[in-house]
Amino acid sequence: MAVDPKVAAVIERWAPRFISNGVPLTDYQEATKAIANWDDWCAAWARRAEIHEAMGMAALDAGKGISAGEHLQTAGVVYHFAKFVFVGDMAQMKASHEKAVRCRDLALPHIDPPGIRVEIPYADASLFGILRKPPGAQSPPVVVMCMGMDSAKEEMASNEAHFLKRGMASLAFDGPGQGEGEYHFAITPEYEKPVAAVIDYLETRDDLDASRIGLWGVSFGGYYAPRAAAFEPRAKACIGISGPFDYGKLFKAQGGNEVFRVRAHCASMEEAYTVAKRIDLTGVAEKISCPLLAIGGELDTLTPPAEQQRMANEASGPSEALILEGGNHCANNLRHMYSPQSADWMAGHLGAG
Amino acid sequence: MAVDPKVAAVIERWAPRFISNGVPLTDYQEATKAIANWDDWCAAWARRAEIHEAMGMAALDAGKGISAGEHLQTAGVVYHFAKFVFVGDMAQMKASHEKAVRCRDLALPHIDPPGIRVEIPYADASLFGILRKPPGAQSPPVVVMCMGMDSAKEEMASNEAHFLKRGMASLAFDGPGQGEGEYHFAITPEYEKPVAAVIDYLETRDDLDASRIGLWGVSFGGYYAPRAAAFEPRAKACIGISGPFDYGKLFKAQGGNEVFRVRAHCASMEEAYTVAKRIDLTGVAEKISCPLLAIGGELDTLTPPAEQQRMANEASGPSEALILEGGNHCANNLRHMYSPQSADWMAGHLGAG
Repeated sequence: MAVDPKVAAVIERWAPRFISNGVPLTDYQEATKAIANWDDWCAAWARRAEIHEAMGMAALDAGKGISAGEHLQTAGVVYHFAKFVFVGDMAQMKASHEKAVRCRDLALPHIDPPGIRVEIPYADASLFGILRKPPGAQSPPVVVMCMGMDSAKEEMASNEAHFLKRGMASLAFDGPGQGEGEYHFAITPEYEKPVAAVIDYLETRDDLDASRIGLWGVSFGGYYAPRAAAFEPRAKACIGISGPFDYGKLFKAQGGNEVFRVRAHCASMEEAYTVAKRIDLTGVAEKISCPLLAIGGELDTLTPPAEQQRMANEASGPSEALILEGGNHCANNLRHMYSPQSADWMAGHLGAG
Repeated sequence: MAVDPKVAAVIERWAPRFISNGVPLTDYQEATKAIANWDDWCAAWARRAEIHEAMGMAALDAGKGISAGEHLQTAGVVYHFAKFVFVGDMAQMKASHEKAVRCRDLALPHIDPPGIRVEIPYADASLFGILRKPPGAQSPPVVVMCMGMDSAKEEMASNEAHFLKRGMASLAFDGPGQGEGEYHFAITPEYEKPVAAVIDYLETRDDLDASRIGLWGVSFGGYYAPRAAAFEPRAKACIGISGPFDYGKLFKAQGGNEVFRVRAHCASMEEAYTVAKRIDLTGVAEKISCPLLAIGGELDTLTPPAEQQRMANEASGPSEALILEGGNHCANNLRHMYSPQSADWMAGHLGAG
């Protein structure tokens, strides 16, 4: 049993997310059992990931592609959770992060449907994403998937599956301050900028229908996607899950946030607060004219459901809030209550399937 | 937290099985939290299943087949666990069982790949199974999947997936004393009889290659499949997971088994012991001439790894035992350490993929 209250809090909050996103129950149980204090987090999870990585590499060597894909996909997500909020030790965090990226990258040709790593020119460098297409589809619509404060594209397989099964391609990408984008780029409240770069990229491809693009985002991405939709006429529908409407207020009430500070590239919590205050849909939500589905959890204390309700209220297009009774942050404990349904909603708006 | 030691024991033993086989973590947590004593088990799980069933029926009504398939598949497996060892109240058990069967049956056309319910003539009645075929395959080989003392075909989706992805069809069936077969037929140690009926049925189909049939079994099925392989020349390879070699000995050492007694249709534990003693591969294992992979968990106290090791030692064909370090019964806590690998093993022997 974990003794460090920080460890206990992370475990309590995120267990359903870990499992839903592909961590085997045994890894979750063994990793958390092995963590006496927070400093052990990254190493304990990485040790579990190594088991899957070794099996995946052995399967690759043996020419067993399907097994390799399964093991390396799992290795990637377990390494990702080794990394996810471990900003207190950047060297350790980055080492696990590189392995997460490498494992999922090696898995991509072998998972069903396969994925490819894509590079998206952005500002003075590039962003990276994972593109997967529904099998057999000609020029499918695309769902652009926006990550949160600590999620990354390596964690998205189970969310991608809902769209892929319904005839939509998925492009999960690490934006500024996220995953591979967090070292060079700081958290960027004006998220329409990276989304525009992603859509510009999609328009260069002839295997996708860039006239049917949906936006989806989880946690902070539940702000990023609606924010981008407000400024991006190429977005035809938008789903935001447990995003903040006014993060400055929450940041202050919660006494700041160290992960946010680091990924906003700020030297102090005061400086980070100036960034947090820019995460605010006041006067912006009304510019959202495409269909909006704002999802939240009734019991979410990080970004309470009033935030998502306000998005739906203030958006000017057809919009609705789906607040899940008993749901926690991102209603990860109730994914079965909204993931299939919201993917159907998106499919309807993008004319998929 | 569960207080009844019987509840605590079931939860402790089976948590990884529940999750691996498709129970959402939240259902597992909420159902077990709601169970103060054993009598509550079936109703608490059924209440969780009802949520999925209602969503599935709503999705069916709305013409959302993919969502319907997901919800009803989950409903089926959660109802199955309401039922699984609840033999102390047959009326309750049977009501949940019927719902498990009905939900999975409704899900079958909508899951990927789809399944069909098949009826297999056996003795004076029929057995029932679920047949799924790998997409696009012409005349694929088939893996006949044998259940255990408390598993049933409604629980097999994640195990089926390993074979389907590798180009093999799956036929999971409820044999005598199992699932739909447990009311009319008693547990039958001479399991080559139902397996022969299943293979006879497969030979009547022109969409499968009945010359390439593998047997697979889990828990008691880890005895049933090797037992059938010993007498069934049409079996080309066999995987047995955590099966007993000599169940009479274990039954006695464990003070009998009420679930076994009921499903063996015995009035007393003494009578059940006479059935248990017939579950014995002494003088039988040596007749297994097809390739055999006997899998076990190092820490399995129900059917210790010496049982599977002995099967591999005494079989006369190419055989191996894979005993997983740290594995519990059926190594359900380490499925990722053997499910992909053993499916590759089967694919190799059946010339699949």
